[in-house]
Amino acid sequence: MQFYQLLKSSSDTKARRGVVHTTHGDIQAPFFMPVGTRATVKTLSQEDLHAAGAEVELSNTYHLYLRPGLEIIGGAGGLHRFMSWPKPILTDSGGYQVFSLTDWRKLTDEGVEFQSHLDGSRHMLTPEKVMDIERALGSDMVMPLDECSPYPCEYEPAQEAVRRTTLWARRTVEHFRRTGMGEGGQRLFSIVQGSVYRDLRERSARELLALNTDGYAIGGVSVGEPVKEMFEVLSWVVDMLPEDKPRYFMGIGMPDQIVRAVGMGIDMFDTVIPTRYGRYGTCFTDRGQVVVRNGQFKADFGPLDPECDCPTCRNYSRAYIRHLFNAGEVLGLRLAAYHNVYYYLKLMRRIRQALDEDRYAEFAQEFLARYAAQDGAAPEDKSRAKT
Amino acid sequence: MQFYQLLKSSSDTKARRGVVHTTHGDIQAPFFMPVGTRATVKTLSQEDLHAAGAEVELSNTYHLYLRPGLEIIGGAGGLHRFMSWPKPILTDSGGYQVFSLTDWRKLTDEGVEFQSHLDGSRHMLTPEKVMDIERALGSDMVMPLDECSPYPCEYEPAQEAVRRTTLWARRTVEHFRRTGMGEGGQRLFSIVQGSVYRDLRERSARELLALNTDGYAIGGVSVGEPVKEMFEVLSWVVDMLPEDKPRYFMGIGMPDQIVRAVGMGIDMFDTVIPTRYGRYGTCFTDRGQVVVRNGQFKADFGPLDPECDCPTCRNYSRAYIRHLFNAGEVLGLRLAAYHNVYYYLKLMRRIRQALDEDRYAEFAQEFLARYAAQDGAAPEDKSRAKT
Repeated sequence: MQFYQLLKSSSDTKARRGVVHTTHGDIQAPFFMPVGTRATVKTLSQEDLHAAGAEVELSNTYHLYLRPGLEIIGGAGGLHRFMSWPKPILTDSGGYQVFSLTDWRKLTDEGVEFQSHLDGSRHMLTPEKVMDIERALGSDMVMPLDECSPYPCEYEPAQEAVRRTTLWARRTVEHFRRTGMGEGGQRLFSIVQGSVYRDLRERSARELLALNTDGYAIGGVSVGEPVKEMFEVLSWVVDMLPEDKPRYFMGIGMPDQIVRAVGMGIDMFDTVIPTRYGRYGTCFTDRGQVVVRNGQFKADFGPLDPECDCPTCRNYSRAYIRHLFNAGEVLGLRLAAYHNVYYYLKLMRRIRQALDEDRYAEFAQEFLARYAAQDGAAPEDKSRAKT
Repeated sequence: MQFYQLLKSSSDTKARRGVVHTTHGDIQAPFFMPVGTRATVKTLSQEDLHAAGAEVELSNTYHLYLRPGLEIIGGAGGLHRFMSWPKPILTDSGGYQVFSLTDWRKLTDEGVEFQSHLDGSRHMLTPEKVMDIERALGSDMVMPLDECSPYPCEYEPAQEAVRRTTLWARRTVEHFRRTGMGEGGQRLFSIVQGSVYRDLRERSARELLALNTDGYAIGGVSVGEPVKEMFEVLSWVVDMLPEDKPRYFMGIGMPDQIVRAVGMGIDMFDTVIPTRYGRYGTCFTDRGQVVVRNGQFKADFGPLDPECDCPTCRNYSRAYIRHLFNAGEVLGLRLAAYHNVYYYLKLMRRIRQALDEDRYAEFAQEFLARYAAQDGAAPEDKSRAKT
């Protein structure tokens, strides 16, 4: 069966309603992937994620490779069984973490050598090694090693990163094929780089399109650049991508950014925002963020989000959740994180429904107007700085 | 309706099968009360507690009085509504915490003045004030202010504590009646003190029996004394207590201690052991404790407790839970705490079933033999040292 199936194109936007088929089940698209960095979406159980309607999880190769290590995850029979998540999993390549988390690294065309942020031990990731790791993890969607440019980035190093990303993508595809990962049901993406330079982005996309990977990701975004530039990058690349493959905007974003990106033709999203913000007591609603730790909610016995039907909002008050945060009680983080993940997953369901009914332009306009009117507008997204 | 109803007496032990009736529902006895110190049983949601079969929660007057305070809890309509727990609640008096948590306190017959462990602010608890607080909380079962002797304790101060505990209990009963708390559906206990001195324990019990409170508690136990002495104290007091009222062994205990105490005629238990041990990665099974953080479980893909049917044991492996602890992930604490609370609640169901079938002596003998045979026997219970 084809990996990505286009069900319906929006008549007044570039949004796409589709479905992604994997050996661990279908994922209705556009979709959001809760991030389980260390094989757990922070504070939430897999039962919580099922109940919240998650159809896929993302997990981090770098973290899992270092701890607990492949011997343990392989011994469990792969990542699905290790973390008890029978539905699809996407794993990143670890490249981003090598660049953002390690104090020391050495980058060559061969690969990247680095010191573990855990114990200082030295490791080497190559495009082939990353595939071997992801084969052992058994994830449904695998990302290749790429070189993610920081922001800001001069033209020369950004060009060099594109060259190396393509070189690595070629070796990745070769290794992926030679080792039969595709026959095992795994699907390979490639990652468009090029920083904020249009010609580099287009060159990167062209070179990767020639490799005909199963899906395409736009990487090196949400690394500190202004939101306006991020969407410019998206607009340059997205129209070059094939209709019959899923498009993944990596590490994005705030709810309004997701709504906008869907309208431009993106199918897949991941971000730690809902769990991270939740752990700091910031909760999402259509009408703005509720910082539940704030004193104003001390005696507010209403729900976190009056429009939400999640267990947090059905069963607990703002005053109670604020009390939990004040007392340092773990349940506070959990209730807030649950609401936020639920909010994101429900937003995707609303997006898909609007697409099913072919009224995406209207939906997006209404959503964005309400969202923009919020008090205390969303701060710049720094969520990927330290994942 | 009578508060405590005796359903069946064990023919070969002193165990009792009963039911406690409250305005928030019935509680099948003997029962265990998960401890929600700050209006939350650590790491668990109320939905978790319902699912695990909890019929009652215990909460701490001292902590809730200081934070969030009565204005907030009163504003929510009482503690049940504040914490979203519609079933029965027992609140302690705060006396134990004043003695164990504060750096400064001044004890007189009038009451106890103390400095908050949170901000150093000064407060005064009197028997009447404690009743007023518990009336505002709206708990179903209320404990009076008592003086809990430490261990070891000389005879003279233990005698003084008994005198003061009786004095305070009299004032408590008077205030409880005058303010109509009983008509409001609340039920009052009194607490037998007297350290490890038989005559003091018997005097305390006699004096409190004259007050005819709704239930009787044995306090000042599990404060550091050897387990043997703890059960001696229990044996002196329990036979003096009336048949038609519930008997509460405060702050007890390890699973084998609960099984023994039920056999001596105790109906009610509370302890932070299941949540506290769970948070440190120690899990209870009939065959001993599993310290899931230990390296031996690194590649153990079996359940925490092979005999358990809780979600933790059905869905997750020891290796996975160990990984969560190693990575500092909150889900580890939660899964372990859930299992432990479930284990305790299920132990009580097994106890009640054995009583229903009038085979408690046999059940206890088998349970205790298996439990005693465990490797790494249970450490001395220090669980109340800092609640």
